[in-house]
Amino acid sequence: MIGRSFEHKIKIYYQDTDCEGVVYYANYLTYLERSRMECLEELGFDLKKLKEKGILFVVASVDIRYLLPAYLADILLLKTYITKVGVASLNFYCEIYNKSLLINKSNVTLVCIDDNFKPQPLTEQLRDKFKECLQ
Amino acid sequence: MIGRSFEHKIKIYYQDTDCEGVVYYANYLTYLERSRMECLEELGFDLKKLKEKGILFVVASVDIRYLLPAYLADILLLKTYITKVGVASLNFYCEIYNKSLLINKSNVTLVCIDDNFKPQPLTEQLRDKFKECLQ
Amino acid sequence: MIGRSFEHKIKIYYQDTDCEGVVYYANYLTYLERSRMECLEELGFDLKKLKEKGILFVVASVDIRYLLPAYLADILLLKTYITKVGVASLNFYCEIYNKSLLINKSNVTLVCIDDNFKPQPLTEQLRDKFKECLQ
Amino acid sequence: MIGRSFEHKIKIYYQDTDCEGVVYYANYLTYLERSRMECLEELGFDLKKLKEKGILFVVASVDIRYLLPAYLADILLLKTYITKVGVASLNFYCEIYNKSLLINKSNVTLVCIDDNFKPQPLTEQLRDKFKECLQ
Repeated sequence: MIGRSFEHKIKIYYQDTDCEGVVYYANYLTYLERSRMECLEELGFDLKKLKEKGILFVVASVDIRYLLPAYLADILLLKTYITKVGVASLNFYCEIYNKSLLINKSNVTLVCIDDNFKPQPLTEQLRDKFKECLQ
Repeated sequence: MIGRSFEHKIKIYYQDTDCEGVVYYANYLTYLERSRMECLEELGFDLKKLKEKGILFVVASVDIRYLLPAYLADILLLKTYITKVGVASLNFYCEIYNKSLLINKSNVTLVCIDDNFKPQPLTEQLRDKFKECLQ
Repeated sequence: MIGRSFEHKIKIYYQDTDCEGVVYYANYLTYLERSRMECLEELGFDLKKLKEKGILFVVASVDIRYLLPAYLADILLLKTYITKVGVASLNFYCEIYNKSLLINKSNVTLVCIDDNFKPQPLTEQLRDKFKECLQ
Repeated sequence: MIGRSFEHKIKIYYQDTDCEGVVYYANYLTYLERSRMECLEELGFDLKKLKEKGILFVVASVDIRYLLPAYLADILLLKTYITKVGVASLNFYCEIYNKSLLINKSNVTLVCIDDNFKPQPLTEQLRDKFKECLQ
């Protein structure tokens, strides 16, 4: 990957695990979302203010591979990249590491929508900021 | 308990359990809430319509005892009672059974609020319906 | 799709929604998992007994498209199909409907593992049962 | 409160909120549990190692008051205190602050159990460490 990498850590608590003793598969999507929210904040965007202006993001698709399990008290490292900036969409690629092992990778597509859940073009300011991250 | 009992079943899936092999303690509060929503619907109330009229309910307190664990694929039976109808509040008592064993009991206080999260009196219609359940 | 369809209903409660007013994207994966567990039970398999024999299933990949949002109190219909039976893997395709609208579709790959999280071939009994569903 | 205070911060993400726009009430129990796990780690205990020795903790009761709501992107401060050390039990009191406002307070009782979910006395080492926190 080239382009700016955003790095965040996530610690695994009881709530994240299931009775097979590992992190439950749906929870990885919550980690991806936390990481995307942190990315936006690091780029200077305030999700609450965007929302007040009628700018929202929804997930249009997720493609995720589970390579290795994670366990209680593990500390995961997420490396998130913006891989494409479309007219009204945004692609993220994320690798999750447990110690030095790659345990999960995913592609997520977000779509920018208005208050009525209709797609709308990214503002120029958003697009410029995101494009700076591409490389 | 005297008064009308509302009964609902909840099945335990992987998402409900944690790495100790049992249902995670916070998830019982989600079952209580599902059961309260079903109660309101059985009494003829539509939460979406109430919300449109500016009538919302929030939880003010929970007092819950965990007596026995529950496991994957168990089917829990919730018996919910309305125990008190206040000016702007509502008390629920719930017993959760796993087969014939009582595994959990709780008291929950709801407060009726408006769009600005300020308490407001229950409408007469709501109060009457709830009082009918008291016995 | 040809092949046997497994149908299950999921009702949306507060816990399923987020502050954008719709079902949170990660929760769809919990619905898919509930549906898969129901499929296995309908086919006569008991997940607890399989586990005792050292037969577990983990998710290897998910490819999911979010087409339309879902809201509080909606009742979703999941139509699940087994689309491929591999030596140690199993593919599911699921469509989620809200009233008559298709709101979500996904492909999930499961891998059969042993107690040590190593892939192991499906037993003949499992493979036969799953293959019967293919068409 | 006198006694040692353990302080932890929790950031609110989409997954924590519901369609009323605030943090869903059951999620506070997940924050309390994260905080208790951090307490134990700060006191030098390793939950995985305790588990291997057959020492587990389960929640026996929760008494929680919801005073004010919390919102997306808020950063909550949890102040946790050990308030009682019993033969086989442990009491925690926690206050949650949003900026300078107290939004939630709770008492939680944990019971020390063995592999078979039977209560067992706290080891001397655990009891001594916990008692040091009482004041």
